[in-house]
Amino acid sequence: MRDVAIIGIGQTKYGEHWKRSLRDLAVEAGLKAVEDANIYAKEIDAIFGGNMAAGTVIGQDHLATIIADFAGLAEHNVPAVKVEAACGSGGAALHMGFMAVASGLYDMVLVGGVEKMTDVPGEHMTDALASAADREWEVTFGATFPSLGAMMARRHMYEYGTTREQLAMFPVVAHENASKNPMAQLRNRITVEKVLNAPVIADPLTLLDCSPITDGAAAVVLAPMEVARKYTDTPVKISASVATTDYISIHSRPSITTVKANVEAGRKAYRMAGVGPGDIDFVELHDAFSIISLIALEDLGFVEKGQGGKFAEEGQIALGGKLPVNPSGGLKAKGHPVGATGVGQVVETVIQLRGEAGERQVDGAKRALTHNVGGTASSVFVHILEVV
Amino acid sequence: MRDVAIIGIGQTKYGEHWKRSLRDLAVEAGLKAVEDANIYAKEIDAIFGGNMAAGTVIGQDHLATIIADFAGLAEHNVPAVKVEAACGSGGAALHMGFMAVASGLYDMVLVGGVEKMTDVPGEHMTDALASAADREWEVTFGATFPSLGAMMARRHMYEYGTTREQLAMFPVVAHENASKNPMAQLRNRITVEKVLNAPVIADPLTLLDCSPITDGAAAVVLAPMEVARKYTDTPVKISASVATTDYISIHSRPSITTVKANVEAGRKAYRMAGVGPGDIDFVELHDAFSIISLIALEDLGFVEKGQGGKFAEEGQIALGGKLPVNPSGGLKAKGHPVGATGVGQVVETVIQLRGEAGERQVDGAKRALTHNVGGTASSVFVHILEVV
Repeated sequence: MRDVAIIGIGQTKYGEHWKRSLRDLAVEAGLKAVEDANIYAKEIDAIFGGNMAAGTVIGQDHLATIIADFAGLAEHNVPAVKVEAACGSGGAALHMGFMAVASGLYDMVLVGGVEKMTDVPGEHMTDALASAADREWEVTFGATFPSLGAMMARRHMYEYGTTREQLAMFPVVAHENASKNPMAQLRNRITVEKVLNAPVIADPLTLLDCSPITDGAAAVVLAPMEVARKYTDTPVKISASVATTDYISIHSRPSITTVKANVEAGRKAYRMAGVGPGDIDFVELHDAFSIISLIALEDLGFVEKGQGGKFAEEGQIALGGKLPVNPSGGLKAKGHPVGATGVGQVVETVIQLRGEAGERQVDGAKRALTHNVGGTASSVFVHILEVV
Repeated sequence: MRDVAIIGIGQTKYGEHWKRSLRDLAVEAGLKAVEDANIYAKEIDAIFGGNMAAGTVIGQDHLATIIADFAGLAEHNVPAVKVEAACGSGGAALHMGFMAVASGLYDMVLVGGVEKMTDVPGEHMTDALASAADREWEVTFGATFPSLGAMMARRHMYEYGTTREQLAMFPVVAHENASKNPMAQLRNRITVEKVLNAPVIADPLTLLDCSPITDGAAAVVLAPMEVARKYTDTPVKISASVATTDYISIHSRPSITTVKANVEAGRKAYRMAGVGPGDIDFVELHDAFSIISLIALEDLGFVEKGQGGKFAEEGQIALGGKLPVNPSGGLKAKGHPVGATGVGQVVETVIQLRGEAGERQVDGAKRALTHNVGGTASSVFVHILEVV
């Protein structure tokens, strides 16, 4: 396998883009990444695009081809394929892009992710998102992702003494970091009290434990490591790209306070990169709900099982802490355009590893891990990125 | 890149499966492929699944993970990702699986495709299929795939003198071949007269120029060529795996009687496999409409541009002709479960190359080409398979 590097990044602002179409957002992010890579768009050999819900929400399938066409690449017949793993679609697309370059089949690959979520009424979008759970065995009986997350949170509190206040630290830190990220959707600072007193969505989770509805797109350009320095002085190596799955429904799992797909993805990623959790300088975790990132922090070996709440309470997940979590603002505050999220995490990671994150810079960051999931971590995509 | 072989195949009967669910069909095909490969399901390292419309039609995204779970693989945390390129989704999934094994990242890979199209009223399915065209610039203005195909056919008749009768030979041969395929949906023989006198769908295309609505699934197991003979005496090598795209809308193209994405996919595939069109013993072409396969036959270099109709009229596309087209019965008569089609073409090809096709066997077939497209060949996936 060839080593794979990221040589270009691009993203739109995350937020509510009422006047723009999905394809418009995707092309903006893609062309920014191409420009950042110092190449021409026609040098792209293949495109892998993450998206979850365009078929359901805007009636548009065949999405990667549509976007390639609108980016001006139809003339060059550039291969383009959409990849879907619910909210993990972006991570899945990166995994495809990694294979594409590692295999030697393609040299210059654009990996993108996009979602346009504000084009339909909220209840339509909620139903589209619910299609990441089992329609026949969960959704039909009333399960929603906040309610599934709430059960995981309640059980974690019962088993490990995790407190409501500890959970609240995840969104508090996310909003603090997003306040320093001009591309983020929710840039207001919040407090633990605000989280606790926000409207309850599914007890014990409140509105401020939940990521928002977001429009946005993100993209990266991959190239073989051996040629990466021709294009950039700061190539970022993908030293691990790992995918796993788990039981789709939490009712099938032996435990709901740990996700084996997280544990296995971490284990494989560390082995592939030849490092351990202690070698990671910061993480971008999939905090669709605060409990999901807390559990991931434990499952990925950064703290012992049950100690995630305490670690957060001590401030260790904040910038300057032992392991900064989501310097971008995370899904919670940077925003969660579902198909784009996994790619957006990687864009933030590259910005950090290049040392270009300004106010939210993680000092001396050399290696980071991204964790992007579909459903209640029924699909998990973990990448380890490093400057070399 | 490692050489990649197909060591196992499986498929459901194509047709109307009123009593069965999408996941049920997918698992049947997958487990048949696993059994055919003489392995245990838990030996599968990754799954790539082609599907177009489950999100729209049955409200189920996150599809590959759902199916992996229902196949009993959640316990083993097997990576599973859905791949979408409209009616080319199956070919796209095979392209991913090829990269996965070629790269060395995965050894044993299951590639599947599935579609359940009879669960919703016809007009709902027609709209879901229309999402493979440009919703904003084609579908909104009334374009449908039969009407787009009809324009391509009319222009081909005008430019090259192709006759209505010549076009009809494609469905006539497809039904003849399907009559010999127990897994096919439409096994009745038809005549040129029947095609011409069938209800007009979009002039000049009649009902019998159009592929049906189909439920079905297909799967193959891939492994590195170097170990393939441990599992089977008849490994089939994937000697080319190529993807291209074109302008999504035919109104953007310089010509509508040739598809550059076809031409480029063929050219790249022949180069990758080190062969030419004359070295191909039979083809499985994407005959969603008779004109689509006629144009592909020319674009892929099997006959000169404009000569496809004459070639068909002379009987050269039938079993025993110079280049048998769609011994399976093709999309027209074997059926067209859109996300499964590209994989099903490969299943038929392996059956033929193993010499196990019975009455519809192409004598002495050693090498074949499969051609699977999305939309009006806006995405094209070409594979060359051979016995070695």
